[in-house]
Parts: sequence; structure tokens; C-alpha cells
Amino acid sequence: MTQHGNTQPASAAFGRLTPLKIIATGAALPPTKVTSAELDIRLGKPPGFVEKRSGIDFRFHGSDSASQVELAVAALRDALNRQAIAPESIDLLIYASAIPVQALPFSAAHVLKASPLKKGISSFDINTSCVSFISALQVAAGLLSTGAYRRIAIVSAELASRGIDWEHEESSIILGDGAACAIVEQGDGQSGILSCLLETYPAGIDLCQIRAGGTRRNPRAGLHHSDFLFQMDGKRLFRQAAALIEGYWQRLLSSAGCSLADLATVIPHQASHVSLEHMRRRLNVPTDVLIDIYRQHGNQVSASIPTALHYAITHDRFKPGKPVALVGTAAGLTLGGMVLMP
Amino acid sequence: MTQHGNTQPASAAFGRLTPLKIIATGAALPPTKVTSAELDIRLGKPPGFVEKRSGIDFRFHGSDSASQVELAVAALRDALNRQAIAPESIDLLIYASAIPVQALPFSAAHVLKASPLKKGISSFDINTSCVSFISALQVAAGLLSTGAYRRIAIVSAELASRGIDWEHEESSIILGDGAACAIVEQGDGQSGILSCLLETYPAGIDLCQIRAGGTRRNPRAGLHHSDFLFQMDGKRLFRQAAALIEGYWQRLLSSAGCSLADLATVIPHQASHVSLEHMRRRLNVPTDVLIDIYRQHGNQVSASIPTALHYAITHDRFKPGKPVALVGTAAGLTLGGMVLMP
Repeated sequence: MTQHGNTQPASAAFGRLTPLKIIATGAALPPTKVTSAELDIRLGKPPGFVEKRSGIDFRFHGSDSASQVELAVAALRDALNRQAIAPESIDLLIYASAIPVQALPFSAAHVLKASPLKKGISSFDINTSCVSFISALQVAAGLLSTGAYRRIAIVSAELASRGIDWEHEESSIILGDGAACAIVEQGDGQSGILSCLLETYPAGIDLCQIRAGGTRRNPRAGLHHSDFLFQMDGKRLFRQAAALIEGYWQRLLSSAGCSLADLATVIPHQASHVSLEHMRRRLNVPTDVLIDIYRQHGNQVSASIPTALHYAITHDRFKPGKPVALVGTAAGLTLGGMVLMP
Repeated sequence: MTQHGNTQPASAAFGRLTPLKIIATGAALPPTKVTSAELDIRLGKPPGFVEKRSGIDFRFHGSDSASQVELAVAALRDALNRQAIAPESIDLLIYASAIPVQALPFSAAHVLKASPLKKGISSFDINTSCVSFISALQVAAGLLSTGAYRRIAIVSAELASRGIDWEHEESSIILGDGAACAIVEQGDGQSGILSCLLETYPAGIDLCQIRAGGTRRNPRAGLHHSDFLFQMDGKRLFRQAAALIEGYWQRLLSSAGCSLADLATVIPHQASHVSLEHMRRRLNVPTDVLIDIYRQHGNQVSASIPTALHYAITHDRFKPGKPVALVGTAAGLTLGGMVLMP
């Protein structure tokens, strides 16, 4: 991304950048806070077990009738309201999430319908599972550079609780629901993407999945109750990601023309406390550089990265001239990351 | 799309264009040809009924165990082989379809795994239901313009037969399976997008849908057998699209800086014989300008437009200097179209 095409000179210290300005962010959570103490009781564990095992104080779960669309719209409204952005100024809505609302039509149309945005604008879904938001930022920068759109809203929303397998201890206690939004423009060329790197290694495709939802498992092709539930082989997933992450990180930083020491903030996917700590150590990221909201959110699938970005922005950790990295591993297996100049 | 940013001068006669060169296309079909005479028997209709009602001689249906991924890979291989393109030269795979393989992870990872493409490249899904391929072309042009990628494969694949409601006469007889692929580069600036217009009017979101597949309908939220099937209110959908299509078409042509007479070829979504003929008349498209492969394919959902594009290219209907329009209406309700300079 740093070598060719419609890029602008960045700060002399770094590589060239693709213009992109985040002009607003927002987030939303369902109303029900689920503490780890409550899960101890639900799962018949001794007090403190779930908190220790999951590394979470509380996460938020929607009810069985909660709407993923309403959660998405709440995050979008939050972003619009915080910066007093006129809804009719948005000309593209991208829904960037791992799980859709339904098989047909695409989820962005559902979100557009329930949103204050102008009907008749462009909208589509992008999906790279847990790093969908990173893909959407890269796609948005491209579309802004060709002048196809002027102001783009990106929304990631997940009701992970809807797919929890309560028989599977490891995954059931880490997942949380939530949504987040970013509104972007091309900007003046001072802000943008220094590098973006998405790498998919599909040998690990079955290690993290929900088999129902499309043509693979349904009443005609064959279907089992477990096909609707989130399945994860945490150990093998962890091993595969761990073998790749260091080389990946070096490629991401090197294509940004920067070093770890240049990064003011690192915003990781909030996968689990073990994976966060492992990644932090392997990549030598100082604790005070990392954004870690996992203990109060859990793993919110695709909503984790934009929720953590929103946290960084609202806590003064995303400042002009100081590069910020987004990074995560995702079902696929995909490694996704981006170095942004705020 | 024609006013701003990284665009190039096109032929003096037209507007400015966003560079995009289609360097290869391919298509694939499942092995089983289903004639309308066979459906007469299956549905207990008199001979000739289904052919007359559907306007189709035959469509292709995969078996209940057929793989959407294998169909996608067959189309990708066809495109690679026809132009002797090295698989390792592709640096991004976009899966641009209405229906996914499964809820998690995204379908492009499944296609990448089964494909001859290099593992570790970037991949993601784009979904705008039946006009997903048009969104993907627009997104690809943006990503090529920023230098993020150099050669992108876009694949649309559908096993519509998997979701046919055989109790619903109208939709059951028109759907066909298939896949198609286009491989694109930035090119030399002579070929590209003169205009692209995607408009979503979600008031019609329930008129064409499959309710299962995501968080809206599943065992936890409530689920009925019919939620897995394709549901369509053809009359209302037709009325809504008909009310919008003429104004939309004028906006698309006007933003391309061209008139209907400039178009060498119009490649529509192959929705149904009635809608194709209606659109052709309302938009005043001469019969010999329209690509109509419906009678031998049926409605292949998102695979229709790229399959018809592949037909146009292999039948000498996509030639330098002569603008070509892609256009369709899609579940959403979305109107999508693009004027390309080949």
C-alpha cells in the first residue's frame, strides 16, 4: 500500500500514506451486563472461577429477541451525535461484521432502513470476520480516493451471545455483544493509512466457525443443532496464529516505514486475556501503549476493534502525528492490521 | 464518481473515468441441466406450462450435496486458464455474492482454501445481494487506485436451488445455480468506470429474502422451516423497482456523460423474462444491445451479471472505446449499475 498510486507524502519520518480521516466514532452495548459471578452460578462453578478463567469482570449480552440491527443503529447514532454530523451527509454505509442479520438481503440494507440516514444512498456489507472493520477502512480509503463517495459510515455490530455454545466452556465465557461505528472522509492528506496488511491462511478455517447460515448446512444439505453455535478449537487456533504473528507484525510495520517505538497506541482485537497478553509480549508492545478493554467487554467479534478504537479516541490516545496500529487475528484464519496516522 | 479524485481523461466524448481493466473472465455451472419439461412433471403441471411461465428452456441445479465453494473455484480456474494468468499473481480475492457458505468465517476464505491462489493473500466478502459484483468492481477500482493491490480476482457463486421453496411457483421455476469470475487490474487508464451508482431503498427489504442465516432467525431467536427458503413477493417487488428504474437509469447515464445511443452493450441482471423485457422497454434498450442469457440460465442471483458479462466478452460484445452498462435490481431493494469503458 505504501509504494504506488494516489498516495500523499506523510510526515518525513514515515512512508507515504493513503488519505483517510476518521471524523467521528461511536459505540453501543445491549442493556444487560453479565458479570462473571453470574456465570459462575449459571455454569455451576465455584465463585471466582469464570472471572479467573475468562479474565473478564463483565460483558454485555442481548436478550434472545434483541436486534443486531438496532445495536448497529445505536452505534451509528452515537457517532453522528458526538460530532453533530448531519445524517444526510453520509453517502455510503458499510456494514463490516462477521455475522449477518440474515442470509438475504445483505445487512447494510437492514441497518439503513432503521437508521436516520438518507434512503437511496449506497450500502453494502464487507466481511473478514473479526477484522472486517480493518478491511472496511481500507476499502473506504480507496473509494474516497476515486471520488466515488465523500463521507462513509462504517458499522460493526455483533450479537455473539446468540451463537454461544454453553456446553463449550472456553468460548462461552469470553464472548460479549456490542457495536461500534466510524465515520470517515478523505481529509486534507495529513491523516491516513501508512500501511494495511490482510493475510488469509485458510488451513485453519475449521478452527473457529459457525457452520449454519449459508449453503453448507441447512435443511436441504443436512443440519444439526450444533451447526448454529460458535465452535472454536482455541488451542490449535492459538498455535497457528502464534506461529504467524511475529513475521506478520514486522511486515506491517516495515510497509508503514515505522518501528514499534513510533507507535503511540496499539489497538488489538480483544480476543481473550491470554491471547492479548501473549501478543503483547511476542510483539514487545509496552502495556501503556496497548488498548485493553477486554475486562469490561469480552470478545465482541468484529465490534472489538472499532469499540477499542472509539475508546482510544475518547481517551486521547489517537492524536495527530502519532501513528496508531490496529491489529488482530480472525476466523479464516486471517491476520489483519493497519498503521494509521491520526 | 465522475467529478473528483484520482480519475483519468476518457475518450473526449464521455466523462472522466476511474481506471479499471478486466483482464479475464470465466464462468461455471453445476453438471445437472434441469429442463422446464422436467419441472412440469415435478410440479404436476401440463406440458409447456413451466417453459411459458418462466421463460426458461433450462437452468442448472447443483445436488443437495453440491458445494458453492467448488462452483466458485471452477469459475476462478476458468478465468485464470482462459488468459493463462498465473494464480500466484493475484493479490486479493473478493467473494461477491448474495448468499454465504456459512455464517462464520467469511466465504472468501473457503474459496481461497480450495483455489490454486497463493495462501496468505488478502481476501474478503462483499455483499449487495444480486448486484454484489458491481459493488466489487467499484471497490476493486478504488483499491487499485491507492496501490493497495495490483491484480484482483472477483468471484460470484450461487447455489440458489438450495433455498428454493417448491411450494412457491413463481420463484421456484426461475432460479438457477452458477458462478462467474472477473480478474481486474488498474490498466493503462484507457479502460475504466465512467460511472457507478448504487441506491438502496430499504422500504422493500421484506419483498425478497431468506430470513435464516444470521442473528434474526435461529434456534435461540426462534426459527421456522420456511425461514431457510427464498421468499419473494414478485408483484410488489416489480412495482417498487418499476417506479424507480427510469430515474435511476437517467442518473447513471448522466453521471457517465453518455446517452443510451452511446452504449454498445447493456448487461442486465437476469431477474426474469418479464422483468428483463419490462426493463428493456422502459429504458428503450434495443434488443440487439441487450445481453439476454436468461433462457439458458435462469436467475442466478449475484452470478447473473458476471456470467452475462463473461458471455458478452466471449461473444465480442465488449470492445475498446464502446461503453457497456451493467444494471440490475437486487434484494434490498437496491438498484445497481455501472458504465464501463472496456
